[in-house]
Amino acid sequence: MTLTWTHVASDGAARAGTLLTAHGEVQTPVFMPVGTAGTVKAMTADSVRSTGARMVLGNTYHLMLRPGAERVARLGGLHRMMDWRGPILTDSGGFQVMSLAGLRKLDADGVTFQSHIDGSKHRITPERSVEIQHLLGADVTMCFDECTPFPATYGQAAESMRLSMRWAARSRAAFAPRAGHGLFGIVQGSTYADLRAESVAALSAIGFEGYAIGGLAVGEGQPEMLRMLDITAPLLPQDRPRYLMGVGTPHDLIESVKRGVDMFDCVIPTRSGRTGRAYTSRGVLNLRNAKHAEETRPLDPDCGCPACRNHSRAYLHHLIKSEEMLGPMLLTWHNITYYQHLMARLRAAILDGRLHAEAAAIEAGWAEDDTKAQAA
Amino acid sequence: MTLTWTHVASDGAARAGTLLTAHGEVQTPVFMPVGTAGTVKAMTADSVRSTGARMVLGNTYHLMLRPGAERVARLGGLHRMMDWRGPILTDSGGFQVMSLAGLRKLDADGVTFQSHIDGSKHRITPERSVEIQHLLGADVTMCFDECTPFPATYGQAAESMRLSMRWAARSRAAFAPRAGHGLFGIVQGSTYADLRAESVAALSAIGFEGYAIGGLAVGEGQPEMLRMLDITAPLLPQDRPRYLMGVGTPHDLIESVKRGVDMFDCVIPTRSGRTGRAYTSRGVLNLRNAKHAEETRPLDPDCGCPACRNHSRAYLHHLIKSEEMLGPMLLTWHNITYYQHLMARLRAAILDGRLHAEAAAIEAGWAEDDTKAQAA
Repeated sequence: MTLTWTHVASDGAARAGTLLTAHGEVQTPVFMPVGTAGTVKAMTADSVRSTGARMVLGNTYHLMLRPGAERVARLGGLHRMMDWRGPILTDSGGFQVMSLAGLRKLDADGVTFQSHIDGSKHRITPERSVEIQHLLGADVTMCFDECTPFPATYGQAAESMRLSMRWAARSRAAFAPRAGHGLFGIVQGSTYADLRAESVAALSAIGFEGYAIGGLAVGEGQPEMLRMLDITAPLLPQDRPRYLMGVGTPHDLIESVKRGVDMFDCVIPTRSGRTGRAYTSRGVLNLRNAKHAEETRPLDPDCGCPACRNHSRAYLHHLIKSEEMLGPMLLTWHNITYYQHLMARLRAAILDGRLHAEAAAIEAGWAEDDTKAQAA
Repeated sequence: MTLTWTHVASDGAARAGTLLTAHGEVQTPVFMPVGTAGTVKAMTADSVRSTGARMVLGNTYHLMLRPGAERVARLGGLHRMMDWRGPILTDSGGFQVMSLAGLRKLDADGVTFQSHIDGSKHRITPERSVEIQHLLGADVTMCFDECTPFPATYGQAAESMRLSMRWAARSRAAFAPRAGHGLFGIVQGSTYADLRAESVAALSAIGFEGYAIGGLAVGEGQPEMLRMLDITAPLLPQDRPRYLMGVGTPHDLIESVKRGVDMFDCVIPTRSGRTGRAYTSRGVLNLRNAKHAEETRPLDPDCGCPACRNHSRAYLHHLIKSEEMLGPMLLTWHNITYYQHLMARLRAAILDGRLHAEAAAIEAGWAEDDTKAQAA
């Protein structure tokens, strides 16, 4: 049996569920830390596990270039290589090809591009993308698509979306069904409601184990993104997981869960950790700021991660200012922990039918600027 | 009672002992990982502990400049700030002032210098160095001295050593005795046997809780360093710990333990880890080397650290080539683990009276180049 998702409870449009994969169960809504090149940056696999994370994402573009998909397969697959025992979702490579690669040429069959690492020439087609993800050992394979740039005219968005739908059919045909594995289609259509609907219809006709909503969080702003979720989510099959790609901030996650999204990935918690930003129950802290230099309190009194349990904000400030690797290590660990706790709270609230109250309580916490309390 | 060292066993000139400090017991011979700026680079305090390390070193020069000694004291001391529960030895700042600071001016009273971080002007005297180390909360405080540059003429070496001896007396006078804390004198004299003897006599007359051998591993080469140990160690008080500063490679450690050294610190295992070099029971591996790209074996079959337990050499090669932070993190963890295991093996061998056989067995392991076995 392919990967399955079981609906456990609803609260309004929000859903709690269980994703069952070849590498175990994952409770949804779920946030997947991004393990770009076979590592969640600045964390060991053990430390990622310790945050409660059960599922991570790998990037096809990065891994196909280095160490190479066939090499990963010879090393026993991505799970074994990075010592990740839970499920892995891989993206299709399309998004990074468009945003990172050098000279690239899109045609009806696929994309030819130059590596950003050494300028070497490569090609991805829907069939090759699915093959690469198979070689990596992905539990969830994503269809190869074009992430429509924003803004796009209606004509551009329609043409791009229809290309992605043709590629979705080819991805489906290329995907080898295996127990506990699945292929997700990706809804495109930019900010045009009827194109989103056309895309959902096209994907539903093909049939996938899950449905991603792509082409959002690309510059359209949160209100427009949420409007697209309001339009798109209700059209998606009720019995399949929904994955909002590349999103987002804690507030984005809350608002998207309310609208029926089950899965998320984003570099925000890891990238922010490397630049000294911490997401906490009392809002965002910038640890570079000199106001933390003698602050003996922990980052987040409500967090049990090593950064919060063992250290002061002053120490984290010192590490970031000194460009010590331990600064990014601890802040990434904290941010991923925060994201995992946030998702666990949202899931528990859905089960209890009190999601909106819980979301309001979380947001009220963010508004308590405890750095001001300290200064007073 | 001040910090004490108890002699447990000898094997030839080599000694096994127990150092008792305000932050617990340490078995000697001991290797202290270097925690330059309040962090053993690329490791959490928990991961340092997991290697078996019980005692670490902090650098007065780095910490006095950032975050500042008084600030560390206000934050509860270095132990609390970096979450290190075992003993900490701090150096005096002298070595880094000479090698890292900008414009510096040595006079009979101390050194004035410019920070390498922001060019700000600072001054260290023996009294201020001891005060800083007190503010940091060091279990072992080092006398402020001049590490005589190599090579030095006899006259230069004599003058420099005698300045350090005057400063040693001033450091002793400035040191506030506290239970479990101690002050170590530092033997200088470059490569001149009679100056080394004069220095030992001067320090012994003052009286210290331990004796460091300084001014070695500064370019004189291993044979000359070992010759100086052969000359110096027998002159030192038998009932006090001996610390060889800034040394060294695994082979340096073995040869120095044989000659009666009890304590070591060095950046080699941490710095090497960050540049892709691993010390293993089968010799040194450079993980940047392409020959590891598909090597599924662990770094060191005899090691239980996370790098060896969970990953292949191929993965470590990938991380280093990709400049992923996890590469330095895992290799540092491994190297510190290797150094700790090495010291534990040497201590056990001393207790059993078979140090020379054990050293020979360890060195025979290094000669087994298992990367060749793989290629064959």
